[in-house]
Amino acid sequence: MPEKHTILVQLDTDALPSTFDRVVAVDAGAQHIFSYGGVTPENVVTLVHGCIFTRGAKDLHRTAIFVGGSDVAAGEAVVAAIRKQLIPAAKLTVSVMLDSNGANSTAAAAVRAAARHVNLDSVESLVLGGTGPVGQRVARLLAKHGGHVRLGSRQLDRAEAVAAKIRQEVPGAKIEAVSVATSSDGPKALQGRELVIAAGAPGVLLLPKKVRDTAKQLRVVIDLNGVPPAGIEGVGLGDRAKDHDGIVGYGAIGVGDTKMKIHKAALVALFEKSDLLLDIDEIYEIALRLP
Amino acid sequence: MPEKHTILVQLDTDALPSTFDRVVAVDAGAQHIFSYGGVTPENVVTLVHGCIFTRGAKDLHRTAIFVGGSDVAAGEAVVAAIRKQLIPAAKLTVSVMLDSNGANSTAAAAVRAAARHVNLDSVESLVLGGTGPVGQRVARLLAKHGGHVRLGSRQLDRAEAVAAKIRQEVPGAKIEAVSVATSSDGPKALQGRELVIAAGAPGVLLLPKKVRDTAKQLRVVIDLNGVPPAGIEGVGLGDRAKDHDGIVGYGAIGVGDTKMKIHKAALVALFEKSDLLLDIDEIYEIALRLP
Amino acid sequence: MPEKHTILVQLDTDALPSTFDRVVAVDAGAQHIFSYGGVTPENVVTLVHGCIFTRGAKDLHRTAIFVGGSDVAAGEAVVAAIRKQLIPAAKLTVSVMLDSNGANSTAAAAVRAAARHVNLDSVESLVLGGTGPVGQRVARLLAKHGGHVRLGSRQLDRAEAVAAKIRQEVPGAKIEAVSVATSSDGPKALQGRELVIAAGAPGVLLLPKKVRDTAKQLRVVIDLNGVPPAGIEGVGLGDRAKDHDGIVGYGAIGVGDTKMKIHKAALVALFEKSDLLLDIDEIYEIALRLP
Repeated sequence: MPEKHTILVQLDTDALPSTFDRVVAVDAGAQHIFSYGGVTPENVVTLVHGCIFTRGAKDLHRTAIFVGGSDVAAGEAVVAAIRKQLIPAAKLTVSVMLDSNGANSTAAAAVRAAARHVNLDSVESLVLGGTGPVGQRVARLLAKHGGHVRLGSRQLDRAEAVAAKIRQEVPGAKIEAVSVATSSDGPKALQGRELVIAAGAPGVLLLPKKVRDTAKQLRVVIDLNGVPPAGIEGVGLGDRAKDHDGIVGYGAIGVGDTKMKIHKAALVALFEKSDLLLDIDEIYEIALRLP
Repeated sequence: MPEKHTILVQLDTDALPSTFDRVVAVDAGAQHIFSYGGVTPENVVTLVHGCIFTRGAKDLHRTAIFVGGSDVAAGEAVVAAIRKQLIPAAKLTVSVMLDSNGANSTAAAAVRAAARHVNLDSVESLVLGGTGPVGQRVARLLAKHGGHVRLGSRQLDRAEAVAAKIRQEVPGAKIEAVSVATSSDGPKALQGRELVIAAGAPGVLLLPKKVRDTAKQLRVVIDLNGVPPAGIEGVGLGDRAKDHDGIVGYGAIGVGDTKMKIHKAALVALFEKSDLLLDIDEIYEIALRLP
Repeated sequence: MPEKHTILVQLDTDALPSTFDRVVAVDAGAQHIFSYGGVTPENVVTLVHGCIFTRGAKDLHRTAIFVGGSDVAAGEAVVAAIRKQLIPAAKLTVSVMLDSNGANSTAAAAVRAAARHVNLDSVESLVLGGTGPVGQRVARLLAKHGGHVRLGSRQLDRAEAVAAKIRQEVPGAKIEAVSVATSSDGPKALQGRELVIAAGAPGVLLLPKKVRDTAKQLRVVIDLNGVPPAGIEGVGLGDRAKDHDGIVGYGAIGVGDTKMKIHKAALVALFEKSDLLLDIDEIYEIALRLP
């Protein structure tokens, strides 16, 4: 008897489910894709039941759920609601991947890009826009590698909260919250940093060139802002290990290839087991195994 | 020229079309599944036109419609609206299956489970929750087989109406409406019954163990309630021909395998002709032909 | 490495995306069809981004967009919004086809039907319902071929506006707006005409038989009205080159086969390049190449 077809259930918190995520699912080889928009923690319940009560436990690895949409917090709430419906005791589970707004695959790709140029175990880094969904994930991954991380935000109290959470969840994390609200904050935050990753809101300049020039140790800058003007002045959208007077630069499109490879590899991994939750740590593990 | 791909148009009266029905359609081999939510008798009209006016009459058996959703009455209204748009005189028809809330496949599966243990031509049965969509269908199938059926409901007038309808539609049906409103009703309704099938609302206890113990002829109990507590006290969700002190018991999951086989076989049958209406009688016929 | 699967993104301006367009897409061989309803110029933006930012430029011809729905003006607005998002300078484009309400494929099919019986380079024609989406397209195609076209409408000013637009866009077009508001207008508009194509609102009689009888040169009548009563009295829905006392007649279903062939051929053409816009002129070119 041939194996059952693979089914990816795409649950999107936006009204119209993402074509981006669906094209990637096709290219990752999913045989059937069920796309739903307007998914909430409430209406997801029967959608999950339809996943776990249709195929027997031994075939449930051929059904998987992808949660997406532009709002990462909404996606996280849907994932939490999904997991309440799974029944591990009866092996009635399906694997679930979260990549709302591409946050997980983008954060993983940015850190992999940095790894080509610095030693992540010891690099001193600064994450700008560090309280947003991508920034938090980047900081977490850097902290897990072991280097010292500064997490910058215009609101110091929010940066402190995120840093505290990472310290709690990542044993031994060396992470420090810093304010980047005033013009004197920038140079201070940059002091001694070899790596800067900017993950702020689209079109917001986080690091002007004249501030950047004050950072003598700086070796790598990665700007994840996809909408001009750049978050790191002077870095182009398509920069990919581009030399800027001795500093290596990446733009959002420049890390896009790696992001896409991670996204696809995670989708393939989803169908290998029936009980995976692929969030930032798991997706980064998959990124590490890529050739 | 190769045959055209099969297309199942899934029309669901709920806002988000059922993943359950769609997974089953994949596993039954439908090559393309078009899923629509929020379908009503009004907006279904152009959806049906798109089915019948696209492929020539000789290929229309490769397009079929499945009507589902949690509300059986809403599904029935959609089926009625669909059939008004078909044009049999011009052979512009597609086959249609109704299985809102799984009512048809569940009722057929329950009766097939009973047939393993009793002679349906003569068995004396009681259907609890007999006025609901599943209960009505179970009672109708039992009456067609020829045994004497008691149809129980807390509202006697509603039970009478359902019994009258079955009497009218099934020649020679031996069916009697009974009240199960008071504590003394239970033992009376059960008297002489060999088979009890409970199809009440989720989580409502219809048959307490102490009442069941009064039924000396009882041989088979089938509880279609999928949400604890059980509709028939003591029967487990997963019971499948389980012995309970000489009485054979089935729970909702216990009849699930048979239900799934019937559901899939009906989907396969849909694509054999272009003019089928698969409602309870036709789906039961398909169940009878299963190995 | 095998070619990427073809993906047709069906963007429909109605709430429920057309089953008609989706069945035709299956039969034209699209491997994956993503169907969206309720598409507007606003919400289409991210849908387009998901198309152009997922596959590399060399594979973008395997993703294409089809715009449909019952409202042609709404479809045109969506196409305009889509094209604003494409980035030809970076080769980040996908091909787009517009066929809202079947207007383009129907107009092309009607003109191809006429070509079997008259010389389009010189035929004198009358288009009834000439200001509607199908009528405008039919008149444009006839004018491009070179014959003299009368564009009839009950509102002369609207007919004048459409004629002026066609004169501007089609060099050398011989086109004249005529009123068909009063009972004496009909015979005047018909005078000398060999071909009449009616593309009015469903169920509206545009050409009564007794008026038609006054047209001594008339050789071909094509009625695109799909809902009885006929737009051209006496022409049947299924007429296909049917003789009516020396006049050849076609009804809406009679041109349906050709329409379907054009629709499918256009869908196939969509996947040959990544920068096509298939509107009336391009779809008619495809129709001309059909065997």
